Amino acid sequence: VEWRDGTLLILDQTGLPGRSERLAATTPTEVAAAIRQLRVRGADAIGIAAAYAMVLAALEPAAEDDPRGHVERWAVALTAVRPTAVHLSRAVRRVLAAIPADAWERRDRRAAAALAAARAIEAEDRAMSGRIARAGAKLLAAATAVVTHCNTGRLATAGDGTALAPIYLLAKRGHGLRVYACETRPLLQGARLTAWELAQAGIDVVQIVDGAAASVLARGMAQAVIVGADRIAGNGDVANKVGTYPLALAARAHGVPFYVAAPASTFDPAAAAGAAIPLEERDPEEVTSFLGRRVAPHGVAAFNPAFDITPADLVTAFVTDRGVIRPPYPGRLPADPPAGSQAG
Amino acid sequence: VEWRDGTLLILDQTGLPGRSERLAATTPTEVAAAIRQLRVRGADAIGIAAAYAMVLAALEPAAEDDPRGHVERWAVALTAVRPTAVHLSRAVRRVLAAIPADAWERRDRRAAAALAAARAIEAEDRAMSGRIARAGAKLLAAATAVVTHCNTGRLATAGDGTALAPIYLLAKRGHGLRVYACETRPLLQGARLTAWELAQAGIDVVQIVDGAAASVLARGMAQAVIVGADRIAGNGDVANKVGTYPLALAARAHGVPFYVAAPASTFDPAAAAGAAIPLEERDPEEVTSFLGRRVAPHGVAAFNPAFDITPADLVTAFVTDRGVIRPPYPGRLPADPPAGSQAG
Repeated sequence: VEWRDGTLLILDQTGLPGRSERLAATTPTEVAAAIRQLRVRGADAIGIAAAYAMVLAALEPAAEDDPRGHVERWAVALTAVRPTAVHLSRAVRRVLAAIPADAWERRDRRAAAALAAARAIEAEDRAMSGRIARAGAKLLAAATAVVTHCNTGRLATAGDGTALAPIYLLAKRGHGLRVYACETRPLLQGARLTAWELAQAGIDVVQIVDGAAASVLARGMAQAVIVGADRIAGNGDVANKVGTYPLALAARAHGVPFYVAAPASTFDPAAAAGAAIPLEERDPEEVTSFLGRRVAPHGVAAFNPAFDITPADLVTAFVTDRGVIRPPYPGRLPADPPAGSQAG
Repeated sequence: VEWRDGTLLILDQTGLPGRSERLAATTPTEVAAAIRQLRVRGADAIGIAAAYAMVLAALEPAAEDDPRGHVERWAVALTAVRPTAVHLSRAVRRVLAAIPADAWERRDRRAAAALAAARAIEAEDRAMSGRIARAGAKLLAAATAVVTHCNTGRLATAGDGTALAPIYLLAKRGHGLRVYACETRPLLQGARLTAWELAQAGIDVVQIVDGAAASVLARGMAQAVIVGADRIAGNGDVANKVGTYPLALAARAHGVPFYVAAPASTFDPAAAAGAAIPLEERDPEEVTSFLGRRVAPHGVAAFNPAFDITPADLVTAFVTDRGVIRPPYPGRLPADPPAGSQAG
C-alpha cells in the first residue's frame, strides 16, 4: 500500500501473479472492501491499510457533523472486517488515540494527526522487518532449505516481511536457502504470492500442496519450518493461516524446529490462550470453487475456517523484533505493544 | 469400468463432477493411458482395469507372432504406469498365471482364460467391499462424523469402496454419518469424486481444504478418521494419497482413532516397511496449475509426490475383508493375497 495525496494505492493481490493492478481508494468503504476481499492481506499489511482508512474516514464529508463519532464508528467497522489478526484493531485504536481532543473539529488537524500515526505504523513495520530478519538469520544459518506456509513477505508487510525476512537477508548475504512454499488452500497465497515474490527476488522456491509438507519433513528435505502469525496469545498459542497447525505437528514428529516470526504487535496478552482468539470463518464458496470454476458438486457444503491454532508447546521459538524468544513462554512474551498502539 | 464384448468401458473420472463420460478402450495402450491420466483411479479400480487390459493384450493382432512374450511385456508395462498401488502388479501377474501353457497359441483360449481371471478379480473386489463395510460399521457405530481423504468409494472399486463402504452401509441402516471430505490436492479427488458420490447417495458431506482437517479434529467435530490405502508394508506402514500422513498425525494429537480400510490384496509383505514402497512422483504441473489454470508464476518448480507413508504406529486398526486387525501388527497382517494373485 502507498499513501499519495489523499489516496491509498493498494496492489490488488487477488490478481497476482497474472495481473498486477493497483486500486486507488479514497474512502474508508473502499479500503474495508479491499481488506474483506483480500485485495490487501497479511496481518501487518491490513493493519497499515486500516490505519490509512482511518485517515480517509477523518477526511470524509460525512465526518463533518460528528467527526469523532464518525471516525470511531469506522474504527469499530474496520476491526470487524477481519477479526483474527490483532493488527487491525490495534492500528485503528492507535490512530484514534493519536488525534488530540482539540483537533477533532478541524478537518486538516484531525487528518494530519491520523496521517502521522498511520505513517508511524508503516515505518515501524518496515523497521521490525529488519530486526526479525537479523534474529531469524542466526537461527537459519545452518539450514539449506525451509518450509513455509501462506505469505509473510514483501506483500504482507511494509518491509521484507516476517517469516520471509530472514530468507531475504540470508540471500543478500550469499546464503541462498531453498524455500518449500505450501500453496495454502483455499486462496493459494503460497502459490500465487510467496512463490511469486521469492522468484522475483531470485530465491529458489519449490511449490508443494499443503498435504505434501509432512512428506518434505519426513524425507529430511528441510531443516526448519518458519511461518508468520496473525495473533499470539499470552501463553504462546499461535493463530495463523489454516494449515499451520498440521505443519507444526509434522515438524514435531520429525524433530524439525518450528519457528514463528512476528513483531511484538502480534502478541496479544489479552487473549490468555488460543481458545480466546476469534477465528474467522469465510465463505464456503472459497473451498467449493476456484477462479470462478466450481470444483465440488452443487449443493455440497463446506467448512472454511481461515485460521487455526498451533499450541505453544509445538513452537520451538518466536522470532521477534525484540529478538528470539524460547520456552518456557509465560512471562517472556512481549506484553507491551509498540508505543501508543493499545491506547484509545 | 465395465467389460462389454471385447471393449473396456471406463467412466472418465477426470471430468467429474461436471462431465460424466465413458471411454471405450479396445487396446491395452488405451487402458494404460487412461490409468496414467487418472481417468480411472483408485487402487482397486486400476487393478481391475489393468486385468482387462491384459485381456485386450491377449486379443491384439500384435500378439500373434509371440503371444506369451507380447502379453508378458504388457504385464511389465502396465505395472510401471503407476508404481505405488500393489493391486496393479498383482492383477496383471494373476491374469498371466491364469493362462494355461497350452492355451497361449490359440487367441480364443488365451483371451478366455485371461477374461475369466479379470472377471474373478472384479467379483472378488465387489465381495471384499461388503466385508469391509460390515467390519467398519461396527467401529463407527458410535460416531456421528468422520474425516476421510481422497476417494475410496464406488468410483475407486467395483463395489461400495473401502473407507467409504462402512459409511454407505451405515446410511442404509439409517445411521447417517457426516463425512468431512478433504479435497485432496492436487487433483481434488475428495472434492470432485468423494463429495459427488456421497451427495448422490444422499449422505451428508462437508468439504474442507486439506489443511483444515486438523482443525476439524481439534474442535472435536469428528470421532474417527477413515482412509484407504494403496499398499501396506509388512510392518503395517501405509502408503496412501499424499496428505494422509499429516491427517494421521492430527488424529493422534487429538486421540481420534485413525482407521485404514483395505482388502487383503493391499497388504504387501514383500515390502518390509514403508521405505520399501515406491512412491510415485507426478508432473509438477499438477501443483502449479489448478483445473488447467496456472496458479504459480511461470518457471517456479514444484515437488509432487502422489503418496506418503503413514507409520504403522499411527494406525488404530486396519479394516479388512478378513475383519478388523489391531496392533501389534507384526504377524497379524494378511500375508497371503487372494487365490492365485501372487502367482506368475
